[in-house]
Amino acid sequence: MNAITKSASGQELRQQIRNGGFGGQTAGQAPDYLQGNVVILPKRYAGDFLLFCQNNPKPCPIIGLTSPGEFAIPGLGADLDIRTDIPQYRIHRNGLLAEERGSIEGLWSEDLVTFVLGCSFTFEEALMREGYPVRHIERGCNVPMYKTRLETLPGGVFNGPLVVTMRSYPEAQIPAIFDLSARYPHAHGTPVFWGDPEKIGIRDLNAPDYGDAVEVQAGEVPVFWACGVTPQAAIERAKPEICITHTPGCMLVTDIPSATPPAVDISLSHLMTGAAQRTH
Amino acid sequence: MNAITKSASGQELRQQIRNGGFGGQTAGQAPDYLQGNVVILPKRYAGDFLLFCQNNPKPCPIIGLTSPGEFAIPGLGADLDIRTDIPQYRIHRNGLLAEERGSIEGLWSEDLVTFVLGCSFTFEEALMREGYPVRHIERGCNVPMYKTRLETLPGGVFNGPLVVTMRSYPEAQIPAIFDLSARYPHAHGTPVFWGDPEKIGIRDLNAPDYGDAVEVQAGEVPVFWACGVTPQAAIERAKPEICITHTPGCMLVTDIPSATPPAVDISLSHLMTGAAQRTH
Repeated sequence: MNAITKSASGQELRQQIRNGGFGGQTAGQAPDYLQGNVVILPKRYAGDFLLFCQNNPKPCPIIGLTSPGEFAIPGLGADLDIRTDIPQYRIHRNGLLAEERGSIEGLWSEDLVTFVLGCSFTFEEALMREGYPVRHIERGCNVPMYKTRLETLPGGVFNGPLVVTMRSYPEAQIPAIFDLSARYPHAHGTPVFWGDPEKIGIRDLNAPDYGDAVEVQAGEVPVFWACGVTPQAAIERAKPEICITHTPGCMLVTDIPSATPPAVDISLSHLMTGAAQRTH
Repeated sequence: MNAITKSASGQELRQQIRNGGFGGQTAGQAPDYLQGNVVILPKRYAGDFLLFCQNNPKPCPIIGLTSPGEFAIPGLGADLDIRTDIPQYRIHRNGLLAEERGSIEGLWSEDLVTFVLGCSFTFEEALMREGYPVRHIERGCNVPMYKTRLETLPGGVFNGPLVVTMRSYPEAQIPAIFDLSARYPHAHGTPVFWGDPEKIGIRDLNAPDYGDAVEVQAGEVPVFWACGVTPQAAIERAKPEICITHTPGCMLVTDIPSATPPAVDISLSHLMTGAAQRTH
């Protein structure tokens, strides 16, 4: 698997996905376009989740947000339909994974609100373009992800540990990698930590909480970035009756060039029914 | 004190300050322009502090950053000189306030790095323009600030509690105020919490840790925003041998229109001497 050689516009890839012609991981697909993590929740949770994302912009940079029932997100793609355009969906019930589906048309309702959050694929493409290898992509596996002892700032019923991804580099390269990542605040931005994993509560790099273990080579330092799986850890705790996400690695591909933070209209007013406030 | 009636461009006000003609609080001065919190540190702390700010963009939105020894910040004002253009400076030694000065020309060295962080005056002006009163400004006093039980994400030697400001509003207005604040991510953005202060570790609203107590009127809910004093709490813990800040309320006034997030070149490479990494 090589993330650089593939190509397609976001729109082309979404059409393939919608027609059942593509149902896999999106790493390296449409490499010049932003990809996103997706979280779909009932309206009564949406105010709290918006607050959680706003309170934790490093793991949860919002690149798309709908009003209840909206399935189009024209700001991310003119023809985008969130019910059909993700390769694989996960349906979580009461915080637990219940099933996977290739479409959620049958589950859609006027009550659902969609959040799209920036994704590390964006800065990984940038790292590789600048000559910094990304080993899990070279190995054809998922990035290793770890729950840390660092807590996010709560947002209503949502709270939980910061989840991080790990990539390793020689120490001398870290400042340049930091500076490169800083250009992508809409895709987790700069690393949150590098060095001894135990300092952030990671006991064993070989036992990631999500994804696959990837070795740290001699002379390299593990570097940790905030991860878009952080909200999934918060959802496990909050246990909403239903929550729909993408399957890890099978992201929403947009038509927004990677270097451009999309303009998002952050509106709690659109979501409020009083429920979000009452939970505080 | 009324923050709306005053006027001056940022440049005019900075000239007055530089010439000794203005040495007070900047609330309501040059109301259309961004104001900033200032933290000046020796180079050996600057990498860690950059990481701390990047890890905590809600309390610490970076709107300006220099290389070591630079005292001009042309991105914030063509003639801006950080040694002379703040109404009053605080010199902290080993984490403790040692003295206040009207200029730091006598303390300047090639070793000092300046961080400018967004400031709540920016969204307060916006709140008032939209008809949401800001009571501490009406009362002519400082905003009440509280240390919470919520922890920031550490950055090297810097860590500490999230410090918040409080303004109170009727519950029905909170969604609109949230949405208005969301337009100013470079000035602390949306509130982090509203409701029962004890839930975030504030025992007594009448006993703020910084600033002045301001009453919450009947029918109002206390609303809390991340605060630019958060880094000062982290500096108290990290105890650098010297740290220069503005005196609270006496901010750096820039020439950047308030609604515009300034473009900042975030560069750890400029700051690295190895020290920041060794602390991890």
